[in-house]
Amino acid sequence: MIGVDWGISSLRAYRLRDGRVVARRERSAGILTVSGGRFAETLHEVVGEWLSDGEDRVLLSGMIGSRQGWKESGTVACPAGLTDLAGALSTVPFGEAAVRIVPGVAGADDAGIPEIMRGEETQIIGAGLGTGVACLPGSHSKWARVADGRIAGFTTYLSGETFAAIRDHTILARQIHADDGHRRDVPPCDAPAFDAGVARSAEPGGLLHHLFGVRSLGLAGLMADGEAALYLSGLVIGHEVRAALSPGETVWVIGSPSLSALYTRAITACGGTARLADADAAALGLGMIAGRATWS
Amino acid sequence: MIGVDWGISSLRAYRLRDGRVVARRERSAGILTVSGGRFAETLHEVVGEWLSDGEDRVLLSGMIGSRQGWKESGTVACPAGLTDLAGALSTVPFGEAAVRIVPGVAGADDAGIPEIMRGEETQIIGAGLGTGVACLPGSHSKWARVADGRIAGFTTYLSGETFAAIRDHTILARQIHADDGHRRDVPPCDAPAFDAGVARSAEPGGLLHHLFGVRSLGLAGLMADGEAALYLSGLVIGHEVRAALSPGETVWVIGSPSLSALYTRAITACGGTARLADADAAALGLGMIAGRATWS
Repeated sequence: MIGVDWGISSLRAYRLRDGRVVARRERSAGILTVSGGRFAETLHEVVGEWLSDGEDRVLLSGMIGSRQGWKESGTVACPAGLTDLAGALSTVPFGEAAVRIVPGVAGADDAGIPEIMRGEETQIIGAGLGTGVACLPGSHSKWARVADGRIAGFTTYLSGETFAAIRDHTILARQIHADDGHRRDVPPCDAPAFDAGVARSAEPGGLLHHLFGVRSLGLAGLMADGEAALYLSGLVIGHEVRAALSPGETVWVIGSPSLSALYTRAITACGGTARLADADAAALGLGMIAGRATWS
Repeated sequence: MIGVDWGISSLRAYRLRDGRVVARRERSAGILTVSGGRFAETLHEVVGEWLSDGEDRVLLSGMIGSRQGWKESGTVACPAGLTDLAGALSTVPFGEAAVRIVPGVAGADDAGIPEIMRGEETQIIGAGLGTGVACLPGSHSKWARVADGRIAGFTTYLSGETFAAIRDHTILARQIHADDGHRRDVPPCDAPAFDAGVARSAEPGGLLHHLFGVRSLGLAGLMADGEAALYLSGLVIGHEVRAALSPGETVWVIGSPSLSALYTRAITACGGTARLADADAAALGLGMIAGRATWS
């Protein structure tokens, strides 16, 4: 079968056989860059060769199932596991192959404010946690509790987007971009400035106060411009981790190698234990859900 | 004498006689919009008429004394009062009139991270607090402890800039601007959505989680697009106030009427008591500092 993790800014396609990835393709054809609703055409361009070679089942996950995607594919409520997801696939028309979309998962935080994920549920399933905590860092970081293989609840943090907005659109931008003249989306993780930002996030005053410290440390000559982005990243990730992590907890980190390295470092500094999930969690999850679904 | 509160984005000039404002002028000639260092020319355009009419002393405060301003005017350390400020004025050349700049005030938070203000010290002096807490809302909100008429210490929050960056440069922008098509810098304060944002800031999860709630409430149809900016404003101001306010405290709010109204509402909701300072605090402070300075 073919699995496609289709998000806002990119698309990752996998060909699976017996649950293993045998081929893969990546495109920058995220849902916001596909113009005029040409999702079927885009999919055919990427996986057409595999279809000609005998594949006839395609499972999509991610924002492709949102209102801005190919077809709004609904959600299943927490607790949501493999069977729940596989039983609620949406169908989109696509020539001779069967194309289905994994639903999102809906929940609520302790105060009753709604939560939603699209795509992360497939990665969590693929990571194969029985019971534990998963962290999926990114623009909208998710922390999910998994119990008996089902997503019991989850919390979202607007961390990645907040980092980028503060870095590029406040007085800190001049300081941060003075150094390199370009945007580092993910700073390297072995720098003391990142650790200093994580440590700072434990001090009184809150994030809004800590953000001003980036400026005042620079003005006072106590932080080089080249360190400001790393320090800011440490601040934002530190605030997220301290809000999400329970003392002594083990967290499975599911994400890109560079972001996972930063989160691992921050989780450790905040008293938790981080473990890296399989880098192919999305592909494995797509294969598992496809295997449980009814395709006829 | 003439007092000028000269900030990043605007300039407010006052003519004072016996400590009272007898004339005033406002221009959008903030330091970042004055090109080529033409500060003297700009000042002459705004107050030249008053100089021709017999004034010969001009006192400037605000970011005009920063590295990006007319002349970097140094800082005095906390505790800083009227005498400290009046004794540390900088001089800039300007034809026949004497032109001086009020220094900034430097401090540090409990963790030793530096703090700096430029302009707010003059407003605090002008507000005439003996002992108490002053809140100066804005792009970089300041909360200052005043003891015996001197600024004993202060804390800065990057609230206004964070609000604007999140509103305009994250996924929330589409939602917020869907309603009005333009940017509301200061939302009206009598809306339940603002109060809901302030109340939400007390709940677990932290600011980064609460920011995602703006999106998820919108997606779930629980918040109209037109309410999102107000709710976001309440969230950010609520987080600032909860970090800064001690239980039961009385806070003097020094700022524009619209922002002061929002902060008064948030401070009250968070269990404090807000009092409005004289709207001419900057002008009064300039007059008081000028009166204490040596001009010869």
